[in-house]
Amino acid sequence: MDQIFEALEKVRSEQPLVHHITNWVTISDCANIVKCFGGSPVMAHAPEEAADMASIAKAVVINIGTLNNSTVEAMKIAMEAANKKGIPIVLDVVGAGATAYRNQKVKELLKYKIAVIKGNASEIASAAGINVSTKGVDSGSVSGNMIDIAKKFALERECVIAVTGKEDIVTNGGDVFIIKNGTHMMAEIVGTGCMAGSVIGTFCAVEKNYLVAAIAGLVCFEIAAENADKTSEGPGTFKMKLFDKISTLSDISINKMKKLEKLQ
Amino acid sequence: MDQIFEALEKVRSEQPLVHHITNWVTISDCANIVKCFGGSPVMAHAPEEAADMASIAKAVVINIGTLNNSTVEAMKIAMEAANKKGIPIVLDVVGAGATAYRNQKVKELLKYKIAVIKGNASEIASAAGINVSTKGVDSGSVSGNMIDIAKKFALERECVIAVTGKEDIVTNGGDVFIIKNGTHMMAEIVGTGCMAGSVIGTFCAVEKNYLVAAIAGLVCFEIAAENADKTSEGPGTFKMKLFDKISTLSDISINKMKKLEKLQ
Amino acid sequence: MDQIFEALEKVRSEQPLVHHITNWVTISDCANIVKCFGGSPVMAHAPEEAADMASIAKAVVINIGTLNNSTVEAMKIAMEAANKKGIPIVLDVVGAGATAYRNQKVKELLKYKIAVIKGNASEIASAAGINVSTKGVDSGSVSGNMIDIAKKFALERECVIAVTGKEDIVTNGGDVFIIKNGTHMMAEIVGTGCMAGSVIGTFCAVEKNYLVAAIAGLVCFEIAAENADKTSEGPGTFKMKLFDKISTLSDISINKMKKLEKLQ
Repeated sequence: MDQIFEALEKVRSEQPLVHHITNWVTISDCANIVKCFGGSPVMAHAPEEAADMASIAKAVVINIGTLNNSTVEAMKIAMEAANKKGIPIVLDVVGAGATAYRNQKVKELLKYKIAVIKGNASEIASAAGINVSTKGVDSGSVSGNMIDIAKKFALERECVIAVTGKEDIVTNGGDVFIIKNGTHMMAEIVGTGCMAGSVIGTFCAVEKNYLVAAIAGLVCFEIAAENADKTSEGPGTFKMKLFDKISTLSDISINKMKKLEKLQ
Repeated sequence: MDQIFEALEKVRSEQPLVHHITNWVTISDCANIVKCFGGSPVMAHAPEEAADMASIAKAVVINIGTLNNSTVEAMKIAMEAANKKGIPIVLDVVGAGATAYRNQKVKELLKYKIAVIKGNASEIASAAGINVSTKGVDSGSVSGNMIDIAKKFALERECVIAVTGKEDIVTNGGDVFIIKNGTHMMAEIVGTGCMAGSVIGTFCAVEKNYLVAAIAGLVCFEIAAENADKTSEGPGTFKMKLFDKISTLSDISINKMKKLEKLQ
Repeated sequence: MDQIFEALEKVRSEQPLVHHITNWVTISDCANIVKCFGGSPVMAHAPEEAADMASIAKAVVINIGTLNNSTVEAMKIAMEAANKKGIPIVLDVVGAGATAYRNQKVKELLKYKIAVIKGNASEIASAAGINVSTKGVDSGSVSGNMIDIAKKFALERECVIAVTGKEDIVTNGGDVFIIKNGTHMMAEIVGTGCMAGSVIGTFCAVEKNYLVAAIAGLVCFEIAAENADKTSEGPGTFKMKLFDKISTLSDISINKMKKLEKLQ
């Protein structure tokens, strides 16, 4: 799939504006990772400017990590504006399943047309309406076959589903891809999940095949993580080097390192 | 006190969920330090989900650094839920004494049952009702004997008081421990105080003797800081290495490096 | 201009309290950079304590990056309190021009007496009432001569205008200085613009000639950035080292490295 490097090159040359309404924990990480890829991040959550900001963006990333009524209001306004103009939306269902409030808000946000829904296994299962035991924002146990859940959810929502984890599942309901890149260190810092969502949003801003965009974003991000891990001495150095290693991604390194399988 | 390494091992094996309602400055630092210790941080401040999130956690950390009416409402809901289920609460009284509003809110939060109240000397003195001259969130001058203030406050609130500074005072009103670990670099970056509160919360999640939990958390955190300082070239590298050095804490390094004195 | 090092020395010895009402993306970066310079940052945005917190500060930094109605209310209260006591205010007009809401709020904030208004070219032009095409928070294209725009705006507002970019323009409406320090890496991470505003605020806290304060702050910050860039391996290491390199700024390095021109 040479489309991965092509998509990366498009991000680098087009430098798309990516509007975020995201959480307060990883908001800096998300902005920085978009910048490292070559995009132009903007974070703005006032309901009064959400429509205007979304309308000038090339993609909108909605992340419910620290949602509240005011930010959810802004998310809805941004999503409606994005839908009107055909701007792709990535929804990161952080912590779905953890509380009744969160589940209710996910339902409300799913009323909009979304390009890619991203989460870990228990979050995606919860968003898809399956009962899961979730432990905060970390992945809980999921009953049922995750690939089937993702495919069904993708068909139902007519979107791409990205299930991140040790191995990622990306599907549009028809094709299913498994990404085996990444390193265990990604689970030992806070923010890699949210950053992955922002990266997918950045790729959706330039690549209208959102299945390709989600795969390309995740493969690039995770190869950078592997490169960062090679010389890191712990979670602190790993996170710093993760930002360093985005700009060194090349056609050669991606082709050599990518671990992408088409399942079905 | 071999209990220090034992407590650390419990954190690492039990990976407790630690719910935070904290400030927007150090929210990422707090989440990351909990993760480095092996805990599972969750940050969520919507009043509508505060009770649910606190109820599934093993400890709740309340930090008033950037409090406002909405977050204080969520704090109260989370604290009430935690009290009902016997989940320990750590209250970090950041900036207590700086404004009348902050002092009023501290009073309101002190109505709940708290496991550990943490702050620097002027914050703790202010929370205890003593007039202090506070300069923002940095420690001001404290009149009176800080150890006596802490002991009296601990007895009055039936909790553990942790006064952080060049030397830390930790007391349950009866026993008083002084921790002399740490490095001057901890005062040269933003976030070590808040992270210390999150670390104490993480240890309280697994160790029901909150005096032991507070001491163990602080000793481990400050030994890691000493190790980070050894090869750091300034506040930037120091902060990065602080995250690196948590996972390398061992029985041997803790026993060799700990500077813990029982006073009374 | 030996005043640069003198101002830095004053920051280091007086350790001024700098109150911020800022955005959620770079709030940690802003606090840390103030700390690295030797100042004492405090971030607090509850309207109920904004006046009290501003009143005990030596400078107030207002940054509208992620403004909303509640934070703007707090900004106004803080600015009114600062004006009453003659405490200098730095206004960073982040994203001015991007949305109608943002433009309206900038107008409202400009009703207060401000020491230094800071922004990139398109933000300053927008705040000055000139039509610009802005792309989120990154600089758009500006028609007209930026130096003339800045001079006129400075005279109109009776304040110092700092236009940051590859070359910075700093003017009080009479004198115009151009700063050519800095590195392209400053544009490749998120936060250098906001940090620059916080640094200017920190210098205004100790140097009542705000033209000198703005110049001194920017020159010091950008020399540190140049030093950080020398051994950085990408945006991650660059940002970390930027914090490291503040404390090593000396009379000698500033005089050797400063690139400051008086234009008119």
